[in-house]
Amino acid sequence: MHKMISSLQNRTVKRILQLQEKARTRKNENAFIVEGIREIGLAIKGGFKVLEIYFNADLFPPENVEKLLSKPSEVEITELTAEVYQKIAYRGSTEGVIAVVAGRELSLERFELRNENPLILVAEAPEKPGNIGALLRTADAAAVDAVLIANPRTDMFNPNIIRSSVGCVFTTRIATGSTSEIISFLKERRIAIFGAALQASVPYHSVDFTGGSAIVVGTEATGLTEEWQQNTTQNIIIPMEGEIDSMNVSVAAGILIFEAKRQRLRRDSGFRI
Amino acid sequence: MHKMISSLQNRTVKRILQLQEKARTRKNENAFIVEGIREIGLAIKGGFKVLEIYFNADLFPPENVEKLLSKPSEVEITELTAEVYQKIAYRGSTEGVIAVVAGRELSLERFELRNENPLILVAEAPEKPGNIGALLRTADAAAVDAVLIANPRTDMFNPNIIRSSVGCVFTTRIATGSTSEIISFLKERRIAIFGAALQASVPYHSVDFTGGSAIVVGTEATGLTEEWQQNTTQNIIIPMEGEIDSMNVSVAAGILIFEAKRQRLRRDSGFRI
Repeated sequence: MHKMISSLQNRTVKRILQLQEKARTRKNENAFIVEGIREIGLAIKGGFKVLEIYFNADLFPPENVEKLLSKPSEVEITELTAEVYQKIAYRGSTEGVIAVVAGRELSLERFELRNENPLILVAEAPEKPGNIGALLRTADAAAVDAVLIANPRTDMFNPNIIRSSVGCVFTTRIATGSTSEIISFLKERRIAIFGAALQASVPYHSVDFTGGSAIVVGTEATGLTEEWQQNTTQNIIIPMEGEIDSMNVSVAAGILIFEAKRQRLRRDSGFRI
Repeated sequence: MHKMISSLQNRTVKRILQLQEKARTRKNENAFIVEGIREIGLAIKGGFKVLEIYFNADLFPPENVEKLLSKPSEVEITELTAEVYQKIAYRGSTEGVIAVVAGRELSLERFELRNENPLILVAEAPEKPGNIGALLRTADAAAVDAVLIANPRTDMFNPNIIRSSVGCVFTTRIATGSTSEIISFLKERRIAIFGAALQASVPYHSVDFTGGSAIVVGTEATGLTEEWQQNTTQNIIIPMEGEIDSMNVSVAAGILIFEAKRQRLRRDSGFRI
């Protein structure tokens, strides 16, 4: 048997809302909220541990809870009335199931690459959850070996990042650190650092991404910091010829990563593509 | 001397809010709202006609109004109190100036290409203003010859498109039409049609974009319709190898367009890049 919450005043309701809204609560509890069947499934697939499940029986049949979980006996399961569920759920969400999931240590110190010749995306101080989500979707599609976030300004388990990444935050290998920690990490491993920058740069398609490579993008507003620009192997630029020449950071990252993929495929296949 | 509005009940206040919020009002008036100094300047640069200017003198000095405009004598200028300005302005906007700008006929019938060997981006039924804005930013940066919107589900002068395009909606040559109109337009001009699709497709970097080319992207949810897929010269795919393989539509369009740019630059420069 599971518990039931029918009161909006219940302490758990307040706690879940805080886990959604406050990075501090997520940090203190070392947990975060995942909403939706597909997203919860991806978190489990990505090795995250589900701690608690909340569901509304009108929307999500109780017998499906166990199907969703790999180890249901270890998960605390609670039913919510429709009113309580609506209070907690993201607007427009009607799947009827929400999970509290254990956080994961993302620090670079505990991160190891699994590939001798990696392709890495580095994003410096990304801010908008929508951009971070799009970066993670691209990183998943390209199967990059790591996404390293330098000087993060938000935690990766912000609900808006989970949503806009369509769950790619769970399938991509992510680590965070300061800019100097990430530079050291890359240099120690002799990974070439390609910084997307305006100064002292060459067209992105003229460099060789077939060796171990890190592609570094800054913010749309200010670009890469001096610290990054001075520590790159080569600065690269996407040649632009418009009136405004402003590109979304996730679009720019996509163009650079898939040029690296194209070069690597050409090398591996022996074809001229 | 200019007029002054100090009452929130003023009919003009209601009208401006409707121009922002309602596609129907924009259509009926054949006008739309542009907010911010840079955006108004880009609309003027793009050949759009400013009809009315509204400003708040605390934020935007009256003497700057004439500097902003190319033909101030033809523009109706109205000052707003801080309270009225705040009611009209987008949240967080503090530049103090808003324009009513005349709409532009975007139908394909009146559209002519200026290039014998064009590169065209076609987006079928794009919906999210943020995605359309990012597509237009990429189109501007790549200086594509046209952006054709098939079966548009929103008008291009929606304030969220203007904002998310950072004004590229004014600097890019845009036309709209039905899918069948756009297919006819391209076929009559012998422009190769490359549809981003999953079926019967080849890797995008294996096709030749150096001739007149249209790159067609569908929606993230449903992809390209059958009508497009059956009328392409070649369907193309971005090879993906992730867990989720979901890419933002503007990222996918950026990868395809800049591969075309790379091929064209290689042809023109004679270099192997």
